[in-house]
Amino acid sequence: MSLANQQKASSLSNICTSCSCSPLSILLSHYFVKMSNKNGVEWSIRVGDGSSMVLEPEHKNGVMRLWDRLKGLVVGFVMRVCMFIKKAWALGVDDPRKFFHCLKVGVALMVVSLFYYMRPLYDGVGGNAMWAVMTVVVVFEYTVGGTLYKCLNRICATFLAGFLALGIHWIASHASHQFEPYIMGISLFILASATTFSRFIPTVKARFDYGCTIFILTYSLVSVSGYRVDHLLSMTHTRVSTIIIGTCLCIITSMLVFPVWAGLELHLLVPRNMNKLAKSLECCVADYFGRGDEESKKTLQGYKCVLNSKSSEESMANFARWEPAHGRFNFRHPWKNYLKIGASSRSCAYCIETLTSCLDSKNQVPESIKKHLELACMNLGSTSSNVIRELATSVTTMTRSVKINAAVNDMKNAVLELQDDLKSLSDLLIQPHDHKENNEQVSSEMPVMPLLEVMPLVSFASLLIESASRIEENMVKAVEELAESAQFKQPEDEVKLKHNQATNKIVSDEENVIALQRV
Amino acid sequence: MSLANQQKASSLSNICTSCSCSPLSILLSHYFVKMSNKNGVEWSIRVGDGSSMVLEPEHKNGVMRLWDRLKGLVVGFVMRVCMFIKKAWALGVDDPRKFFHCLKVGVALMVVSLFYYMRPLYDGVGGNAMWAVMTVVVVFEYTVGGTLYKCLNRICATFLAGFLALGIHWIASHASHQFEPYIMGISLFILASATTFSRFIPTVKARFDYGCTIFILTYSLVSVSGYRVDHLLSMTHTRVSTIIIGTCLCIITSMLVFPVWAGLELHLLVPRNMNKLAKSLECCVADYFGRGDEESKKTLQGYKCVLNSKSSEESMANFARWEPAHGRFNFRHPWKNYLKIGASSRSCAYCIETLTSCLDSKNQVPESIKKHLELACMNLGSTSSNVIRELATSVTTMTRSVKINAAVNDMKNAVLELQDDLKSLSDLLIQPHDHKENNEQVSSEMPVMPLLEVMPLVSFASLLIESASRIEENMVKAVEELAESAQFKQPEDEVKLKHNQATNKIVSDEENVIALQRV
Repeated sequence: MSLANQQKASSLSNICTSCSCSPLSILLSHYFVKMSNKNGVEWSIRVGDGSSMVLEPEHKNGVMRLWDRLKGLVVGFVMRVCMFIKKAWALGVDDPRKFFHCLKVGVALMVVSLFYYMRPLYDGVGGNAMWAVMTVVVVFEYTVGGTLYKCLNRICATFLAGFLALGIHWIASHASHQFEPYIMGISLFILASATTFSRFIPTVKARFDYGCTIFILTYSLVSVSGYRVDHLLSMTHTRVSTIIIGTCLCIITSMLVFPVWAGLELHLLVPRNMNKLAKSLECCVADYFGRGDEESKKTLQGYKCVLNSKSSEESMANFARWEPAHGRFNFRHPWKNYLKIGASSRSCAYCIETLTSCLDSKNQVPESIKKHLELACMNLGSTSSNVIRELATSVTTMTRSVKINAAVNDMKNAVLELQDDLKSLSDLLIQPHDHKENNEQVSSEMPVMPLLEVMPLVSFASLLIESASRIEENMVKAVEELAESAQFKQPEDEVKLKHNQATNKIVSDEENVIALQRV
Repeated sequence: MSLANQQKASSLSNICTSCSCSPLSILLSHYFVKMSNKNGVEWSIRVGDGSSMVLEPEHKNGVMRLWDRLKGLVVGFVMRVCMFIKKAWALGVDDPRKFFHCLKVGVALMVVSLFYYMRPLYDGVGGNAMWAVMTVVVVFEYTVGGTLYKCLNRICATFLAGFLALGIHWIASHASHQFEPYIMGISLFILASATTFSRFIPTVKARFDYGCTIFILTYSLVSVSGYRVDHLLSMTHTRVSTIIIGTCLCIITSMLVFPVWAGLELHLLVPRNMNKLAKSLECCVADYFGRGDEESKKTLQGYKCVLNSKSSEESMANFARWEPAHGRFNFRHPWKNYLKIGASSRSCAYCIETLTSCLDSKNQVPESIKKHLELACMNLGSTSSNVIRELATSVTTMTRSVKINAAVNDMKNAVLELQDDLKSLSDLLIQPHDHKENNEQVSSEMPVMPLLEVMPLVSFASLLIESASRIEENMVKAVEELAESAQFKQPEDEVKLKHNQATNKIVSDEENVIALQRV
């Protein structure tokens, strides 16, 4: 770098101290950018505020140019690594359980490698401790359900395949020695093909995919080595015992040290999505009537999370099925019902997605006409959101909502109100036509215009009504079903009320008895 | 079973021969159903047409009852297995490549187990042939891209982890023998945690998830056994060589024997979904105007495939990235653009999903008013479908469409036509109001009704217009981008035209020259 450029760079560092950004962000935001122009390569420094300073190209000899280029490459690489680490760090800070998970994996691996480091343990299990290490690496998943799914699949498949291989090996060894490899080979071919095919079947894929892999693996390993290794039984025994050691270690670590339950995750994800949907709906209506700000434009995008959450919901429900009772959930908690609620949320999100297209539609309705429906639309938006929020709270707290009926009624009334306003909108639109006789200048096209003019508004209103009906018909019902099958608690108020009624009855009964005695 | 029941059962078989159903379907449809009533357990036979015959309960001794129950269980189990096999068979018949895949896996496993069966090969690679078997089982995927992704990840991760483990082992062995386990343990802990964490980062997850697992696995196996096994280098060597044998076998089998290319699958899936969308849109409009039949109701559901295909499209694009040039696709074919087309199809499918809710809406518009827009709506539906089909054909054939501009113009004209009809609809609705002065009996509410009455129709029309605008703005542009980056062929007609023009020019040039010479 020439003196002139060094001066530029030092003035740059002055700028940076004045704008008080952190050293890392200076490093990241003021990096060297290579630009190629007609005269060759040119270096510029991008400053934090987006502007960039060009370092004039100089006439250098080849070695210097190579050195500069190399330096640029190294700096670029360091920058990219820094950015990557920064991103990764933000990911972990956002959800510290991810850090804990990594530490858990590290700890589990350390513990299992103790089998190697400690001589007495090593002598017990022998050189097959490798299988325990492998099991830990392959089986440890983020959620308890995922770990259990893999562990149980692994154990069952290993047992099944092991016994089958031993059985067929026994049969083959009793046949002529000549036929042994053929019997083993053909059985391997048939079993591997059949098991691979079964993985295409959706239910098998969802529950036993990993088990199928392990089944083929174990069968081929045992049958193939059975042809050579003489101490087959002892080999099978050590393999099974080391796998059990590995899986037990995984299950214990994942269940006892900061456990992440797939069921709980699903239980929290579904109402979180519902709340996002409610906010989106409100922001959408507010935006349409020009009452949104920058913040609401961001919140509006929440419905996209709902649209894209299908696969993660399904995998969580799949894993949750394997989890034992934990917290407020039984072993047979109706996880499928959460998927139904998710589907109903999505059906509502489709409506909102279509609604948002009204926001940036080309032919906007005049403000004066919009004004007419604003109150009713805003009301319907907020009552619909209320219903969704109420349902989300009901799911989160696993309590039947006291207010849900009132909220649904409010929503229905808001729909009626909006329909009334639409009726009176017709009145408003017809009026100019009414005055036709008085004012002959009004063109004869006047009554024709309104319908096309208000069409976007009408379709906005009808989409709002449609989303309200979807909330009522799909979402409320889905939550109702979940409440039924998961036996949600009665709300405390209702319990108190019942208790009071019962007490009153006893008191009144006692009074009656006293009164009777008096009589 | 008593004599009476046996007679019933035999009469049943008579029924079955009369209705000429296949033996398997008899087995499946006339199965025994256990029903519990107050008096105990009762058996009924479900007949093919849905009705069922009850076998009267009899007083049996315990052993007989147990026998019956056992028989029922066995029959039930056999039924379920039959159903399962039937389903699986249908799955395979539907796409025979699934059968081929299973055979390929079987063949690959057979070949790799030859290393064990044949003594010379066995002596070459030694007992570590197990790793080759394991590699084949774990790495073989349905698509070439999936197999390549796993193979390359496995090889690279094994090399990287192996060298790292050897290096750290070398450093540790030069330190005091006392520190060796600590150095190895701590390095294992740090690397395993860091690698596990990196799997949470979306880009790493998408491309190197399997590699991360293998990296941890190899590092822990080498470092842990390095502490014990003395011939570490030879062990690493055999492991790497067996893994290379396994991966090569997998790659060769999956690429040469009936290959299933993820790229080609994606290339076919996207236009197939577009065609489904086009059919859905047409059926939806036809259904709304009462022109649909049973068949069209089924076809209408096609848009749901589009809504649910996001994750499969993404995984295919992920795998396709690893595939070498094949067929008409280069190594760096722009697979990402297919995802964009998929996203645009989905945005259109959201519209159709909302449209379908108009079909079973409660407040239907009177047929007379519907009639007014029918032609324009049907026209818009069919022109929109045409545009989608044209785009799908363009993607499938990788040729720029000649007709696409005309098709888009047709669609635009259809939108204008529909808007005109909506204008004249206003006229139609206002008419009763016009006659108010002439006919005083007409209630004053008359002009108020129309807007609410036609609201579903108006919103249906506006959703159709919206879907047309999404097709134009998203889908056409996305296909255009793909055509640009994948360098789609010019259509033959245009090439011919250009050729003709060029020939004409040459001819006319020659004529000019001749003319000049004459002059």
